[in-house]
Amino acid sequence: MDEKTCPVTTTLGIIGGRWTLLILRDLFSGTRRFGELRKSLSGISPRTLSARLKFLEQEGIVERKVYAEVPPRVEYSLTARGRTLGRIIEGLKDWGREHSGAKE
Amino acid sequence: MDEKTCPVTTTLGIIGGRWTLLILRDLFSGTRRFGELRKSLSGISPRTLSARLKFLEQEGIVERKVYAEVPPRVEYSLTARGRTLGRIIEGLKDWGREHSGAKE
Repeated sequence: MDEKTCPVTTTLGIIGGRWTLLILRDLFSGTRRFGELRKSLSGISPRTLSARLKFLEQEGIVERKVYAEVPPRVEYSLTARGRTLGRIIEGLKDWGREHSGAKE
Repeated sequence: MDEKTCPVTTTLGIIGGRWTLLILRDLFSGTRRFGELRKSLSGISPRTLSARLKFLEQEGIVERKVYAEVPPRVEYSLTARGRTLGRIIEGLKDWGREHSGAKE
């Protein structure tokens, strides 16, 4: 199939990275602050996390809200479009649960 | 969630790479020869394709069959365990189909 029109390629172009899927997994559990995501995704650099979140924001998947507090509070959550990825995340979760043991 | 026990991390540890998901997409359409996969996944090096297939074989997801012909024919297909990934691949496909246009 032509890579340019394949719908799997389209999806992976947006959520294809390992970190991106783990960020989405966290946001499916609810709103998160930058520091919470960073702590959860052990090993991610702040620079990479920031870049992934910005990309997801540009793609209309993640919403960034800044609260005028001191220090300012920044929260990330899924948009309606982002929540449509639920089936994929659930699929990854279910498969992992069912296949975390020995290979059949 | 602890990265070591998170089922999403388990799944991504096996199929998390972009190439791996595209290889699986192709094998869901049927048995493929090495050269067919290489042609379909434009940009993949033979070395990378070979490594990914070997890993998937070790994980019990892909089956490699060698036919004693001249030159030998090598075919790759999904195992029963591999076919259990169908829901994930379908999810990626459906999302790509529904969201290939503009951001809502």
